[in-house]
Amino acid sequence: MTREPMLWSGWGDPARARELPEPVRALLRDLLGVRSPETPPVPLEDVRLAPVSLSAALLEELGGVVGGPHVLTSHEARVRHARGKSTPDLLLMRAGDGLDAPDAVVLPGSHEEVAELLALCARERIAVVPFGGGTSVVGGLVASRAGFAGVVALDLGRMDRLLSVDAESMVAAFEPGLRAPEAERLLAAHGLTLGHFPQSYEYATLGGFAAARSSGQASAGYGRFDDMVAGLTVATPTGTLELGRAPKSAAGPDLRQLVLGSEGAFGVITSLRLRVRRAPAEKVYEGWRFGSFAEGTAALRALAQEGPLPTVVRLSDETETMVGLAKPDAIGASGGHGADGGTGVGSGHGAHGGHAADGGHGSRSADGGHGADGGTGGSGSGGAPGGCLVIAGYEGASVAAVRAGAAAVLTRLGGEPLGEEPGRSWEHGRFSAPYLRDSLLAAGATVETLETAGFWSGLPRLYDAVRLALHGALGSPLVMCHISHVYETGASLYFTVVTAQRGDPVEQWARAKEAATAAVVEAGGTVSHHHGVGRDHREAYAAELGPVGVQILRAVKDRLDPAGILNPGVLIP
Amino acid sequence: MTREPMLWSGWGDPARARELPEPVRALLRDLLGVRSPETPPVPLEDVRLAPVSLSAALLEELGGVVGGPHVLTSHEARVRHARGKSTPDLLLMRAGDGLDAPDAVVLPGSHEEVAELLALCARERIAVVPFGGGTSVVGGLVASRAGFAGVVALDLGRMDRLLSVDAESMVAAFEPGLRAPEAERLLAAHGLTLGHFPQSYEYATLGGFAAARSSGQASAGYGRFDDMVAGLTVATPTGTLELGRAPKSAAGPDLRQLVLGSEGAFGVITSLRLRVRRAPAEKVYEGWRFGSFAEGTAALRALAQEGPLPTVVRLSDETETMVGLAKPDAIGASGGHGADGGTGVGSGHGAHGGHAADGGHGSRSADGGHGADGGTGGSGSGGAPGGCLVIAGYEGASVAAVRAGAAAVLTRLGGEPLGEEPGRSWEHGRFSAPYLRDSLLAAGATVETLETAGFWSGLPRLYDAVRLALHGALGSPLVMCHISHVYETGASLYFTVVTAQRGDPVEQWARAKEAATAAVVEAGGTVSHHHGVGRDHREAYAAELGPVGVQILRAVKDRLDPAGILNPGVLIP
Repeated sequence: MTREPMLWSGWGDPARARELPEPVRALLRDLLGVRSPETPPVPLEDVRLAPVSLSAALLEELGGVVGGPHVLTSHEARVRHARGKSTPDLLLMRAGDGLDAPDAVVLPGSHEEVAELLALCARERIAVVPFGGGTSVVGGLVASRAGFAGVVALDLGRMDRLLSVDAESMVAAFEPGLRAPEAERLLAAHGLTLGHFPQSYEYATLGGFAAARSSGQASAGYGRFDDMVAGLTVATPTGTLELGRAPKSAAGPDLRQLVLGSEGAFGVITSLRLRVRRAPAEKVYEGWRFGSFAEGTAALRALAQEGPLPTVVRLSDETETMVGLAKPDAIGASGGHGADGGTGVGSGHGAHGGHAADGGHGSRSADGGHGADGGTGGSGSGGAPGGCLVIAGYEGASVAAVRAGAAAVLTRLGGEPLGEEPGRSWEHGRFSAPYLRDSLLAAGATVETLETAGFWSGLPRLYDAVRLALHGALGSPLVMCHISHVYETGASLYFTVVTAQRGDPVEQWARAKEAATAAVVEAGGTVSHHHGVGRDHREAYAAELGPVGVQILRAVKDRLDPAGILNPGVLIP
Repeated sequence: MTREPMLWSGWGDPARARELPEPVRALLRDLLGVRSPETPPVPLEDVRLAPVSLSAALLEELGGVVGGPHVLTSHEARVRHARGKSTPDLLLMRAGDGLDAPDAVVLPGSHEEVAELLALCARERIAVVPFGGGTSVVGGLVASRAGFAGVVALDLGRMDRLLSVDAESMVAAFEPGLRAPEAERLLAAHGLTLGHFPQSYEYATLGGFAAARSSGQASAGYGRFDDMVAGLTVATPTGTLELGRAPKSAAGPDLRQLVLGSEGAFGVITSLRLRVRRAPAEKVYEGWRFGSFAEGTAALRALAQEGPLPTVVRLSDETETMVGLAKPDAIGASGGHGADGGTGVGSGHGAHGGHAADGGHGSRSADGGHGADGGTGGSGSGGAPGGCLVIAGYEGASVAAVRAGAAAVLTRLGGEPLGEEPGRSWEHGRFSAPYLRDSLLAAGATVETLETAGFWSGLPRLYDAVRLALHGALGSPLVMCHISHVYETGASLYFTVVTAQRGDPVEQWARAKEAATAAVVEAGGTVSHHHGVGRDHREAYAAELGPVGVQILRAVKDRLDPAGILNPGVLIP
């Protein structure tokens, strides 16, 4: 397994970066009015960092806990732990702003070392940022420095073992720093799988999934990550918390659900017991076309409420469908339905991932005369149908029965089968959208995603409110949306926004994001379905929770982390 | 709908009480050595109560909030709110000990009145016991008086409305004091159901289900009650908590799961948004026979892990099967498989229900020479097969496919189909076991239940440990067990114990319960799968949670209820 770090200034494996084809550049120019010249990232060595504020004596003390070689203060190590992977994060990093970088990176090797680190940092008032895959898109990896002697990133990369497999209970125990693909590889040797495939999958860690309350592209079939967590061990400054004696219990509140989504603010997850499944013998993904987003939504609702539910089920709105279908090959590495890769999901340990940048901005849709975000189902050129695309995926020992049952529901509700090609295309590109984002950023377009969830009856209002807010804030952006997570009572809405950079792009997006988030809160949705809270959603989260909810979080935080060293400024309003 | 109160000294509708048939009396004598004379409860008016410790001025203030007629201090009202429905509760009540009764019963009519009551009680240091169905079997309805001016039962019986139905989202909103059968009647008018049928169903309330983290007999199909809760409104002394903007969210920890199971110690649930389902068009329950508990357990595990999962699935061990099958008609009202009615589940508001007394002590099994609890699969007489009985129930729009799929799994793993008669018998008696308990208590036998849950690989150890502890503490009790709730990773174990009363039966059971609970903790199980914590499990719960977990509960409690008025002595260690 590779423990290769990600590209410091963007996403993923630098070898997989792709240039934007000229037709896409033309699209950006003609459709969105992108005029900026190409702006490559500064060289890594030119990134500006603040001086290390921790004394040599304190660094030595940290080394005394984890071993000297596991305390890093190099320029590169600090840059690589400076921020997460939101678009503002990338814009800042590309511009050479590494001022949020930690003073040092410490890599513990065991629960005991984590516990000892927390005790030391509490005593010395050093802020601690738990760091897994580093894929937060909500500012989950930047600690408030005020009042602290310094900030360390607690990188869990050395704690990456599969600890045990209980095949009878279908529970496997892991260390938190294991990346998802490696976890799948280790489980595959036992014929097992977690089935957790968020868009951040290739770099995210298991501990990060838990801390960020992650949800994967196959959540309809395998459940959300919180459904998979049978037990947790958590190191806190107050001591160790050991949770999960049974799948379910009536012995008080389920405190596992208090740790899940706590984003490193209550403690550091040092091991996880996760429900596993048999690796599927069959996997089929296929496409369906619906006349409108409303019709497609009704079909997904029927699957969620009446069944049978596919393993993967997602519905793109008219705009996303148009863009994605218009020219599947225009964007190279993103694999066609770029927008359909955008089920981004959290992963940073103590932070959230979710890296959906869209997406397949096929040039032909512009050629065909559709204004940005104006499409309501018209066909893109190149013979692709209009309307709204559904991807339905089936995984299991045998999928024929569920596939036939779902097909009956989809057909009854107006769906037109498109065969397996759209499914293959989605599968090919499912983790690729963040690469495309890097290319778009370089070309002077801002692309970012945001997501929410609500009950079915409230989704139309939520959908309209967010789009209206984004249009109001950005002029004529391209706003695409899909539903990628369905429940009996509701679903998520995942928006991808592309706009020309105007003025300071970080400021520009901050205003748009603020407007969209306010619209979510006002329309009754949750501020995040799977990206998390981090710093970016903290104030809106307070509005969602209300003052008594905020008091609950603060009470737990104060008791477990009285010195407030854990991820200060993240999550807790 | 009837709001008739339960029999104060026992369970349910006094008109449904039944005398034990002579063969059962003979069984108690010959098998268990029950020698006590019949002991009827004292008359209600002879129950001893402490003087009302609240001043007339305070009672008037309470009346100022809820209206004078909604503050009750009558002998009968106090007796009816004195305790829950555990066997020790009933033994004490039957003996005329009502010393745990509240000073007054207050019946608020709205969220605002609940909030105002909590403010008043916090100011005046009056302990508040939220009271729903009054069906706790874990001491969840008795507050610690130390340091308080008095104790009031906050009876939610007047808050019993269905507030709204959102058929698109399949969510219905309710007030907390609505009893489950009335909720089902109101939903049936919309073609809907909750599908939540714990043994306490006939008297338990929706708020109690939530506060007690209840689980019903059909949890395999409809989920646990915690799966059904989409949203909650909670009145706390610190203010109102409003939770649930979406089915699922990554916006921080899921605080719904902190309220569920909080047993009234954090606040009073004043409304609930619950996921509903379409009322099933078909219902079929059937029996299967397995050679041993281990074989039956393997079959249930396969259903839970590979599917398809029936709506109801339960497995009795050899002893429970023998007793239940031996003479289905011997016990009258309990409907045959008395033991199979014992899926008792919580319900008291801020407290837990679960009322499984067993069960069908058919005389023939004694006649057939089986010692108490000694059967390991031998046939009861009367032609009934030995081994272990599985009840599988199927509910839905159409059940044939799931039924056939489950039958294939059960057959492959050694099951022998017994047809629908055992299913009908189970259905007939599913809520009746508590009535039988009353008759057995009157006859001088102690019958009580306890339950736990664990992961599949740990169940044999848990099963053995609990049985060993009960035998050690009680000499030669009859100990029966069933699995009634299954998950992919584990299951519950539900024990029913029948023993002759020796000495003070309350003390006798307390020692046995302490031994059994210690065995559960030692063997790695949870102290309760669906009965809850109450006062009875509080110390063992602390051992299960560990000191950091206890600190979390205390932190939340201190912040939400700084005066500590809510259910003092319950839940929080």
